[in-house]
Amino acid sequence: VKIGILTIGNELVSGMIQDRNASFIAREMKTEGWRVVSMMSVGDDEHAIAGGLDHVMGLADAVIVTGGLGPTADDITTAAIARCLGLPLHTDKSVLRRLKKRFESKHLPWTDNNAKQARFPEGAQIIDNPVGSACGFYLERGEKIVTVLPGVPDEIHWMLPEGLIPVLRWKFNEGDKTSLRKTIKLFGMTESSIDTAIGELDLALPGITIGSYPRFPEIHIVVTSVNRDERAAAHNLELVTMRIAEGLKKHIFAWDYETMEGIVARYLTDHGRTLAVAESCTGGLIADRLTNVPGSSDFFERGVVSYSNASKVELLGVPQSTISRYGAVSEPTAVAMAEGIRKISGTHIGLSTTGIAGPAGGTSQKPVGTVFVSLTDGDMKACREFLFGWDRRRIKEISAQWALEMLRRHLVGRDI
Amino acid sequence: VKIGILTIGNELVSGMIQDRNASFIAREMKTEGWRVVSMMSVGDDEHAIAGGLDHVMGLADAVIVTGGLGPTADDITTAAIARCLGLPLHTDKSVLRRLKKRFESKHLPWTDNNAKQARFPEGAQIIDNPVGSACGFYLERGEKIVTVLPGVPDEIHWMLPEGLIPVLRWKFNEGDKTSLRKTIKLFGMTESSIDTAIGELDLALPGITIGSYPRFPEIHIVVTSVNRDERAAAHNLELVTMRIAEGLKKHIFAWDYETMEGIVARYLTDHGRTLAVAESCTGGLIADRLTNVPGSSDFFERGVVSYSNASKVELLGVPQSTISRYGAVSEPTAVAMAEGIRKISGTHIGLSTTGIAGPAGGTSQKPVGTVFVSLTDGDMKACREFLFGWDRRRIKEISAQWALEMLRRHLVGRDI
Repeated sequence: VKIGILTIGNELVSGMIQDRNASFIAREMKTEGWRVVSMMSVGDDEHAIAGGLDHVMGLADAVIVTGGLGPTADDITTAAIARCLGLPLHTDKSVLRRLKKRFESKHLPWTDNNAKQARFPEGAQIIDNPVGSACGFYLERGEKIVTVLPGVPDEIHWMLPEGLIPVLRWKFNEGDKTSLRKTIKLFGMTESSIDTAIGELDLALPGITIGSYPRFPEIHIVVTSVNRDERAAAHNLELVTMRIAEGLKKHIFAWDYETMEGIVARYLTDHGRTLAVAESCTGGLIADRLTNVPGSSDFFERGVVSYSNASKVELLGVPQSTISRYGAVSEPTAVAMAEGIRKISGTHIGLSTTGIAGPAGGTSQKPVGTVFVSLTDGDMKACREFLFGWDRRRIKEISAQWALEMLRRHLVGRDI
Repeated sequence: VKIGILTIGNELVSGMIQDRNASFIAREMKTEGWRVVSMMSVGDDEHAIAGGLDHVMGLADAVIVTGGLGPTADDITTAAIARCLGLPLHTDKSVLRRLKKRFESKHLPWTDNNAKQARFPEGAQIIDNPVGSACGFYLERGEKIVTVLPGVPDEIHWMLPEGLIPVLRWKFNEGDKTSLRKTIKLFGMTESSIDTAIGELDLALPGITIGSYPRFPEIHIVVTSVNRDERAAAHNLELVTMRIAEGLKKHIFAWDYETMEGIVARYLTDHGRTLAVAESCTGGLIADRLTNVPGSSDFFERGVVSYSNASKVELLGVPQSTISRYGAVSEPTAVAMAEGIRKISGTHIGLSTTGIAGPAGGTSQKPVGTVFVSLTDGDMKACREFLFGWDRRRIKEISAQWALEMLRRHLVGRDI
């Protein structure tokens, strides 16, 4: 099956935003064993949309269009496609009803331009949008099919696997094909060393493809197994992921949709353990990530962003003498912060960071990127020193990631 | 001038990497006042390249091709373009000489496949590559022009402004043109209401284009002004941005590259005022955003993520009776948190959030999305109640944004 992708939006062709949808869709198509022959972006312009659709339809069996389904005047994708294919537009009453309900439940004022999102070309089948107001749709054109989704990445992440791929499988009579995927998430290795390590493993099995995707500071390896024989697909996937897991074990922290904070949260909750965090250089990022997890109040007791020295002394009980003698960015201060936050909160575990995120504040002794992360559970205390070569935001991100990784290692009983 | 962009590489259409070149090129083209009519990606496949080039040349005055200029077997861009335009290939002796020299100076072994990078279609003009081995080239085809650059982003960042744009300016006789841009950042209005408001303003001036770009929870309006007369370009831009600024004044918080946290940080620093933050539902996100600003330690004294009731009482001095009587998510608790964090930190301003980010924890009295934000400077105290209809992460994001917006309004002396 040949796939064409057409992404629509002035924000794309003006370079205002970078299209993340096309590459996401391309990866998903690859997982299905389908080939993307062309990816195209055009502006919110009827002539450009029609020209793009024509061209891509000439190359591909299925066209996936995204973007331009919003309620505003410049969103003209539906109308342009209808015109290009010679179809009139009509209002779908049930979609309109749901739209109005949605506005009510979100306490948003209804304006009439929103009714536009209930208009579709004649003959279109609706693809539900469980997370947003713009439904997608598809139109069969003989052997070919045109599918249309909104441009919001969060919405596509739901609608593509749940709504669109089943339609394409059915259309191309590949309902019997099994396609399985496993994502392995790694932290603490460079991309090239992962590449080398994977190159040394024997992973050549039928229907298996392997891709690696850097997501700073993590790297994700995606293994796909496509086979008409369901058991063979599962067996091959199992074999390959097992081999990768053995080869790179130390650096794997999560699988599939799990996140670092999600993993740590589950361990803490499952074992009834509680956590408090004292952050200096990470500035609240660790607390922010942990509290993104629903139910985090079960284990996250409190966090302190002790940016000033006074706050380290007053809130955490770090001795002023420790700061004077070793500096705010030092192992003794980091350890005292972890011990202090644990003690004042009465939690099982205390976690702390202190460092120099830059761009100013570095010295030859302690250059920008120097970071200490400490963890204690009352019995043990651990501290690691890092030197990161990134900018301010990335130093915060990789420090927070290391703090969570040290916590994860502690929770699973590994050396920190 | 209409521009088409054709990016070439199997890694693009397989979704392995996200194309950053196209959007970079598009931004630069927009700055020149040229319009990108189509952006297209195809794999390293002669048929696909020829088809893509044909299509894009039909739409555009100038085609910018990137990628596939390497020395390896799968890099076939030059050959495919030559074939598509019916031109034979020849070796450019001076490029070959420079290539060999480059290898020598880098102590790299010369292999014959590298000579491929000195082969160009007949009639091609070379575009030098100051940072890599693959030169670009361009070919005039009557009124149109085809330009080809390597796919390495670092190389394009050099070759586009230095090598390619001057060629296009010369080709289209636009050496004398001025292009200016201004971005207006808004918060607190929906996209459709901004659309309506802008539609009511008189903004039709020569060379002016206006785009609106949602960046949850903000919306950015970009005004571009292109004119051969430099003063007219500046005058029209000024006029249009002034009219938008007047029409939407209340909701504009920043211009161009400024961020909400950057604006707030500058006010605080410039006026020697200090801040402490007590976060419950935002979970550290406000502190994280503020500490992304270099030099934030000048005004950000400390933050507390008081997730548990105990931490609200112990760290912030919120009376237990207030929590028992009104609940942790209530105006009295929010106000006590802001007053508490201000008092214990000795800062000028205290800022607090408390709310129900969900998905659990809502009641009919206080549904998920209920959020209180409070601010005090010792004299005044303010509190606002919100009801947001988003998911957990977005409730955190919009609450943090409102907290910073209330702080900004306070700092500029406006009603909160």
